[in-house]
Amino acid sequence: MAHTALRVLGIDPGSLTTGYGCIVARGSRLQSIAHGTIRAGTSLVPIEQRLHTIHRELLRILAELRPDAVSLEEAFFGRNVKSALRIGEARGVALLTTADAGVRVFQYAPAVVKRSVVGNGNAHKSQIGEMVKTLLGLREEKIAHDATDALALAICHCHRATARLLGVR
Amino acid sequence: MAHTALRVLGIDPGSLTTGYGCIVARGSRLQSIAHGTIRAGTSLVPIEQRLHTIHRELLRILAELRPDAVSLEEAFFGRNVKSALRIGEARGVALLTTADAGVRVFQYAPAVVKRSVVGNGNAHKSQIGEMVKTLLGLREEKIAHDATDALALAICHCHRATARLLGVR
Repeated sequence: MAHTALRVLGIDPGSLTTGYGCIVARGSRLQSIAHGTIRAGTSLVPIEQRLHTIHRELLRILAELRPDAVSLEEAFFGRNVKSALRIGEARGVALLTTADAGVRVFQYAPAVVKRSVVGNGNAHKSQIGEMVKTLLGLREEKIAHDATDALALAICHCHRATARLLGVR
Repeated sequence: MAHTALRVLGIDPGSLTTGYGCIVARGSRLQSIAHGTIRAGTSLVPIEQRLHTIHRELLRILAELRPDAVSLEEAFFGRNVKSALRIGEARGVALLTTADAGVRVFQYAPAVVKRSVVGNGNAHKSQIGEMVKTLLGLREEKIAHDATDALALAICHCHRATARLLGVR
């Protein structure tokens, strides 16, 4: 059975570091085609300049990788109001840039991502990273947490899209 | 003594309604030249579409009003993490759009804005609205809170810029 390839870009936005990871899914086979981090500068750099860097780099990544969909984390819990505001700013720029590039956005709650990747909605951050590397055959590589988090979001969307195709809820 | 005119756009970003207000300051004389709200849609409209609307409308407003500076609220306190994330998204778009338009951004803490407009850092929201209308000679008009908040931010920047010119801290 031939499978059409699904190309998904996961983005983990942050005002200092934004992780991204793009995978291609052919049926149940997942392959990483790019991953990394956008470093927008330290907190000494004015926030509008950092957001401009995130926007410019995401535009470049979207144009280069041409994903069919972007996968983002839906909600945000457990940190304080100030960091929520900062993450929201970077997230707003990621959402706007994706919409402007004409790519559809899908959002998943943290527990859904964890369950999809590790099989456990309460998995630790380190378990996510290890499982992402195993699933994508990247065990030898040293990859930043922000990038493995983004790859986890991309994997989650591929799993869900496949499940939807098969009529599984 | 002749005064150069300073044109300031205040923006009060929100994921449903974004207030804006533009004033021209000639010395101590302040005049409102435009104010209103951008309605980005209800919470049923996907967030990326709402952010796209905010971006598009702010681009139009910046091109039409050509402000010398944009004034935004610096910090955000006392609400919950979820609303901070939502406000952050709209704020990120406002910051990015302003930076992309080549306009400088100035940020002021809520208490600084209140003190600048009402003379009291603990002033109530309704007092701000009334004082904004008085200062700008708009007493007859019915103006949305989001727009008077944005005008207050613009007034605050004008006051601070004038004080800086006069060497007052």
